[in-house]
Parts: sequence; structure tokens; C-alpha cells
Amino acid sequence: MDDKLMLMIPGPTPVPEQVLLALAKHPIGHRSSDFAPIMAEVTQGLKWLHQTQNDLLILAASGTGAMEAGIINFLSPGDRVLVGSNGKFGDRWAQICEVYGLTVDRITAEWGKPLDPEQFRAQLEADTDKQIKAVIVTHSETSTGVLNDLETINRYVKAHGQALIIVDAVTSLGAINVPIDEWGLDVVASGSQKGYMLPPGLGFVAVGAKAWDAYATAKLPRFYLDLGKYRKEVAKNSHPFTPPVNMFFALQVALRMMQKEGLENIFARHQRQTSATRAAMKALNLPLFAPDHAASPAITAIAPVGVDAEQIRSIVKKRFDIAMAGGQDHLKGKIFRVGHLGFVSDRDILTAISALEAALLDLNYDFTPGAGVAAAAKMLTT
Amino acid sequence: MDDKLMLMIPGPTPVPEQVLLALAKHPIGHRSSDFAPIMAEVTQGLKWLHQTQNDLLILAASGTGAMEAGIINFLSPGDRVLVGSNGKFGDRWAQICEVYGLTVDRITAEWGKPLDPEQFRAQLEADTDKQIKAVIVTHSETSTGVLNDLETINRYVKAHGQALIIVDAVTSLGAINVPIDEWGLDVVASGSQKGYMLPPGLGFVAVGAKAWDAYATAKLPRFYLDLGKYRKEVAKNSHPFTPPVNMFFALQVALRMMQKEGLENIFARHQRQTSATRAAMKALNLPLFAPDHAASPAITAIAPVGVDAEQIRSIVKKRFDIAMAGGQDHLKGKIFRVGHLGFVSDRDILTAISALEAALLDLNYDFTPGAGVAAAAKMLTT
Repeated sequence: MDDKLMLMIPGPTPVPEQVLLALAKHPIGHRSSDFAPIMAEVTQGLKWLHQTQNDLLILAASGTGAMEAGIINFLSPGDRVLVGSNGKFGDRWAQICEVYGLTVDRITAEWGKPLDPEQFRAQLEADTDKQIKAVIVTHSETSTGVLNDLETINRYVKAHGQALIIVDAVTSLGAINVPIDEWGLDVVASGSQKGYMLPPGLGFVAVGAKAWDAYATAKLPRFYLDLGKYRKEVAKNSHPFTPPVNMFFALQVALRMMQKEGLENIFARHQRQTSATRAAMKALNLPLFAPDHAASPAITAIAPVGVDAEQIRSIVKKRFDIAMAGGQDHLKGKIFRVGHLGFVSDRDILTAISALEAALLDLNYDFTPGAGVAAAAKMLTT
Repeated sequence: MDDKLMLMIPGPTPVPEQVLLALAKHPIGHRSSDFAPIMAEVTQGLKWLHQTQNDLLILAASGTGAMEAGIINFLSPGDRVLVGSNGKFGDRWAQICEVYGLTVDRITAEWGKPLDPEQFRAQLEADTDKQIKAVIVTHSETSTGVLNDLETINRYVKAHGQALIIVDAVTSLGAINVPIDEWGLDVVASGSQKGYMLPPGLGFVAVGAKAWDAYATAKLPRFYLDLGKYRKEVAKNSHPFTPPVNMFFALQVALRMMQKEGLENIFARHQRQTSATRAAMKALNLPLFAPDHAASPAITAIAPVGVDAEQIRSIVKKRFDIAMAGGQDHLKGKIFRVGHLGFVSDRDILTAISALEAALLDLNYDFTPGAGVAAAAKMLTT
């Protein structure tokens, strides 16, 4: 049905009406006194959301652009980096490192399984001459719905003492606790179309003092992604290039909404919806792709047996106007993914599960009709 | 007055209501069948606007990001490039080249004067062993309102036979004729907040066959700005990263509007408004910063004598809610700039000139009240 699409994918995510309307305002000049207070407010709001006093830099770029900036500003050709890779995005950060001539050691896990922090510990402890310059970790792996144990991995990085920790928080920031200052995360990158309740178009990078020290001697070439330029301008409530001013209007509104809801409530909402979604899948005999102890708060991946993932997605989309995501790369056709990230209410979870049940009925899948909705409802109301 | 701002700066430029409303639509999935037809339509529309069959690639980036992509995808460390520099943006492209370790020869002209094509000819003719790999030219120099003679410079590049021509068309595309295929322009970059009647947030790069040949062996590192990735995906009506889907909705509407108006009419409108603005300044005894034969169709810079540029801008903004641009870098306080680019009607020119006259009256400047409006009106109506 036209204009009736409901997004249950891990980005773009749904956007509130008041944010959309802010997006539709006439642009203003980015070098004018009109823009500076907006820049000041959104920067402060982002620091609140990121739980940090570090520099918070806003790029016109996707999450990949933000993450590339988070890597290339702090390293030099030949530098050794440890990259956690257990999905499409971990793989991508390793690729970026290779493109820039870094020496990459991958720590891998099967897609759908979390990275083992002990493997990081072993490599970091063995590095007695401190050759590892950075450890790159994807917090919530969007391609599999796995949440990696960032807190533990980061503890081993801190024990190493030298390496920076560079975090892909693209689908974790705004969904689950990422206490940048408390944990001492050096570089944290994310994107607007995820937990921020915004359309795609902005990338965010939080940069701490130790990373800026590395920046001073880092030699990889960059200009548009040169975070030093952003840092210099944000100190004047300005921006080095022409920022997408309409997205800044929208960001301003979205951050005010998030501040009103409060960090604890936002995290609790994502946790509740994750639990409800997972409980529903179990009640429907649909195997979860990620284990309970490593479940992303943003996205649940399901690996159905005896029923086709793509057929489920197709029916849910065509009959009920709900977009769910498919598998990527070698998981195409093997899993489907339900996003519950950003502007998602408990009602949306019930809606998605009930539509999923309808599709399963249509496909003659063996399950107890109503069991998924009941299981989700129970998690949402208790 | 709140919500009454009128943009007469060289970007962001005014955006039509129907484009703003498209921006406020709910996002869709960029990997869905909903997105592919939009990608197909805007790519075709952009090819029409660029007068080319070359690949047309859309980046989530500012014009600088697009231009950096246009440079770094086709060159290798140490490559010799000629960079035309007669303003802030020409300087910036030279800086980017230096950051990436290219060997840069600058061809300069005083800010406010056009580049001399004969200097390009001399260097290109002297390069008998074909060491010059690219010539980088800013078509319309936004910082000064100068239009460089791209057609002639390009003719000398073609005579050289080897070098690519890489064009910053950020404030010329959509304002004046840039016939990419007819002239054989290898790489042309621009940005959404200029002639496209859109807010900032998208960059565009048109890439021809000769540039793709260079891409095959070019060694500068890139990932987010790797145009090969965009080329591969656009062939499938897709995008390598998460594109700003709302900006694509807006682009779709803006391109339809431009196609309805027609290229000839769009160019004629910009030319007429440029002539009217310049005639008004002459009638007001306000010295034009760029000579008539090198006047940008997008922006007119004025270097007032006996009256302060910043005071003019301040009064026009505070009393009449019109944003005009100031000078950049060493021109700060010395010039002001009137943008007439994109969604600007003849009425806007009359409005801007009449407000400017009011400011001049307020500042006791010596001029004939009404002379500017009369001169502009004459150019607009004959």
C-alpha cells in the first residue's frame, strides 16, 4: 500500500514526524550566526548521548565514511592493527586498513558468533614491544545481530597501554550503553540512520586525547576525512566544509527527543524489545542466529529451518508493508533480520511479530499461531 | 523576522517547497526494490543535466568530498598535476594534491582575475615527455565570482593528449553550459546545495572512459571515496554505502523540475540574473570584483569603496532578512557576494537589489536611489 511502509531493518530506521518536518525547513547559511547555535546545541547533545567530554565531530558521510575517518586519522603506513572480524562490517574495517597499507592481524569468529576477547588478550600480551597501534572492534555487528564484548576487549587494550581502541558503534550507539569516558574508548564512530532517529546522511566520530596524540604524528593521507579540520572548526561552532544544514535541524530535534526520554529509558526500551523479539522467535520455533549472551540490542537475525527466509520477507513486505532485512554476502537467503533500533515503539514489535506469524501461516510452517505475539507481549508488559 | 530568511549566498541556495516536502518523506530501505527505480531515475536525470553518457556517481559528501574523490581516484603518489589557483577553492584542490603526495605546479592569478589559459598551454606544450597526469581547474570560483575559461584550457589539455582534465563545477553545473561529452571533460565534480535546488548533503562526480583507464592503475588509497565502488553499484541501480535516501527523494523532484524548465532556459535565467545584478551594481557605483568577461553565472562579488562590505551585509540581513555572503580569507571585509544560483527567480534579484539600495541609503552612500533597481529591471525585462 502506498506510503504505508514500516521499516524494521537495521537502517534506515523510522524517523519521527517532528524530525521529518525539521528536515523540510528552508536551509540557512552555514557560515552565518544562525548556524552557530545549532552547531553548539547538537554537539553538546551528541556528547550527552555519547557520555563523553571528548571531541564530537559530525561528517557528511555514511557510517563507513565515519569509521574510515576514525581509522586513517590516527595511523601511519605499515602500522600494525588488530581487527575483530565476525561479520560484514568487521571485514570491511580490515579491508580499509589493507587499502591504506596497514599491517592487519584479523581476529575472527564465525558469522553469528561473538569475537573471543581472550584472543585479543593473547595477542596484546604477546606484543611486548608495543607494535600494535590500534585495535578495531565492531560493537554490534549489523550483518549478524551479534553484540561483541567491547567492555572486556577494551580492558585488554587498556592493559596493553599503547594501542588505541577504535570502535564501530554504528548500530550500538543510542541503543545500548557505550560509556565512552568511563571505559576510555579512544575513537567511536556511528551513523545517523541508526539509533539517532534520523535519515542517513551524517556520520559521527568521538575522539579522545590519546587519539589526538596519535593524530599529531599519523601519516595516512586525508583531507575531507581529516578530523583535525573538524576539531578546529567545532571549537568555533563551525564546520570545515558545507554541512548538510537540514540534517542538523533534524538532529537538533531528534536529540531533544532523546534527552526527554533519557538514556536509561532508551537503553531499557531497546533491551525490552530485543528480549520480546527473541522470545517470540523461540515461541515460533524460529532459530536465532546469535546466541542469547551476544544478542545485539538493535537487530535480531533469524536462520529459519523448513521455511524460506526470502519468502517470509517477501510476504511480510507485500501483504503487510513491513520491510525486514535479508542476509548479506554468504548469508543471503539463509537468514532474515528484524531491526528494532531507534524510533521503534513496543507496538511496532507486536506488529512485526504478528505479521511474521501471518506469513508463517501462509507458508504452512509448523508452529502454534499466536504463540509469538503472546511471548512478545509477555516480555513487553512484565 | 523568524522563518523569513532569504538566501542570496552561493550555497546553501533556496530550495523549492516541493523539494523540501520530498525531503520530509519517511525513509525507505536502500537495499529494497523501492530504492532501485529512484536510483535509476536520478542517475538518468543527472546525466541529462551533465549532458553526458559518462558514469554519474552520487556521494554522501560535500562538494569538497566529491572533488577529492575526483582527484584521488585517478592518480598515484608523485604524479605531476597542474592546478589552476585564483581563489579559495583552486587553492584547496592544490592542497589536497599536496596532502596525497602529488607533485603540484600551480598556475595562479590574482583573486578576482581569471586564470590565463595561455599559461596552461605553455606548460602543457613544454611537457613533451608527458609527465603531467592531470590538469585541475575550478570553473566558477565561488570565493571571487570569477568564471575561468574552461573551454579554452580544456582545448590545450586535449592537445596535450595525455593529461586528464578534472573540473570543479561546483557552482557552474546547472547554472551555465558545461557540455561534458562535447568538450570531453574527464572528471567533473559538483555539490547538491548549488545549482541543483537542494540542501547540502550530496556530491556528484561524472567520470569518463579515459579517467577510468587511469583509475585502473592509480594507487592513491581510498575506500569511502573509491569511485570504482560507486560505479559497480550504480550499474545495478544501487549504492555501495547507505545513501541519504531522503536527499534522493528530493533530488528526484528537483531534477523533474529542472527537466521541465529545460537546460536552455535554466542557463538563460542564470545569465539574465547575472547581467541584471551586475548592471545594478554599476548603476549604484559599486565596483564589481570580477571583470565582465569572466563573470560567474552563479555569484557576483562586489568590492565596495567608501562603504563597508560587512555593514551592508549586516543591514541587509537584520532589516530585510536577506543573507548575502562575505569575503573569505584575505577578502574578509573587503568584498560581499550575492548568490544567484539555483532556485532564484527574477523577483529575487529585484528584491535583493532594492534591499541593498535601502542599506546604502542607511549608510549615507553616494548613489542615485532607485538606479540599481531600474538597471536590474531593464536587464530582466528586455
